[in-house]
Amino acid sequence: MVITKKISLESKGHGDIIDITPEVKRQLAETEISEGTVTLFVTGSTAGITTIEFEPGLLADFKSMWERTIHADIPYQHDRAWGDGNGHSHVRASLLGASLVIPFSRKSLALGTWQQIVVVDFDNRARSRQSVVQVMGD
Amino acid sequence: MVITKKISLESKGHGDIIDITPEVKRQLAETEISEGTVTLFVTGSTAGITTIEFEPGLLADFKSMWERTIHADIPYQHDRAWGDGNGHSHVRASLLGASLVIPFSRKSLALGTWQQIVVVDFDNRARSRQSVVQVMGD
Amino acid sequence: MVITKKISLESKGHGDIIDITPEVKRQLAETEISEGTVTLFVTGSTAGITTIEFEPGLLADFKSMWERTIHADIPYQHDRAWGDGNGHSHVRASLLGASLVIPFSRKSLALGTWQQIVVVDFDNRARSRQSVVQVMGD
Repeated sequence: MVITKKISLESKGHGDIIDITPEVKRQLAETEISEGTVTLFVTGSTAGITTIEFEPGLLADFKSMWERTIHADIPYQHDRAWGDGNGHSHVRASLLGASLVIPFSRKSLALGTWQQIVVVDFDNRARSRQSVVQVMGD
Repeated sequence: MVITKKISLESKGHGDIIDITPEVKRQLAETEISEGTVTLFVTGSTAGITTIEFEPGLLADFKSMWERTIHADIPYQHDRAWGDGNGHSHVRASLLGASLVIPFSRKSLALGTWQQIVVVDFDNRARSRQSVVQVMGD
Repeated sequence: MVITKKISLESKGHGDIIDITPEVKRQLAETEISEGTVTLFVTGSTAGITTIEFEPGLLADFKSMWERTIHADIPYQHDRAWGDGNGHSHVRASLLGASLVIPFSRKSLALGTWQQIVVVDFDNRARSRQSVVQVMGD
């Protein structure tokens, strides 16, 4: 059985980290599937998806890691060609990755207690985002 | 239902980025599955898979990011032991990751308009590559 | 059909890299599924999962890459708030990612000869870990 749903997000961009765990759990609970995978995918080329312990200190640390490692203030050929100023956003998103797959058993996701599912929006402006949540199994 | 296909690629190595979106869409169109996931996996330990806006500026930016961040011109123990000179290729590939899962609904992949599926070949020579495309669903 | 199993690991932390390929192959062999995916997920927010050529030189190279790129010896707000000293472990884990999906066909995983499945434990102490192995298909 396959159930495909969408999550709509309002992000502030600039590395904004949005916890979608409650919504994913809600979507899973609404299905009649008890054993299988939840596939998460963020549509767009300037955002990614991962897991993190969702607490303010770590959110700040993750954001600074990107600033320190994949610099925004160097020349990007993407910006020279298109003038969007978000070359670094694309590069960060491609490195982080757009998909995440989480198995569940007896309706319970394999997540740890301090492990939340997050969308990271690297774009250089506020954006409306869509993520797909697909539940597949028995 | 599960359909497993292969994509054969000729890469130039050295961070070559190959757009496999048209081939993935073609493989999906040929199946009778309308709702499910496409699982992509690149075989080999010096290549990875991700999504990117496939335009020349950004391809150059993504390539330079790897050069800047995971240096090729430092000593690697892998190279000392095996003499392949591709220690950096392995490290980059392990960081990027070998798999990507994209949900589709009514035959339409969750990709954004400017979001293509790419294999990134980090090896230090031209290579023939195989990627697996597996379509699963109803 | 969906089969969900767990792998228990004892890790030394500090970037310890554990090859789970033999165990994954064993779990797959025990099922009656011949075509489908193996979904791997590591529970916890200070470990990740990827593929690598599992040889001592490269394991050392991968470990040094993390030391060089995502520094442990800088201030982390997570550490200031919680005193765990593992802010860098969390950040590395979120970047690497917690899930990996490998297609198989006729019981044979799409892995290359020199491509093993590994759990990377970034925590700053030895830990018992659980990974989920879920086999789905026909």
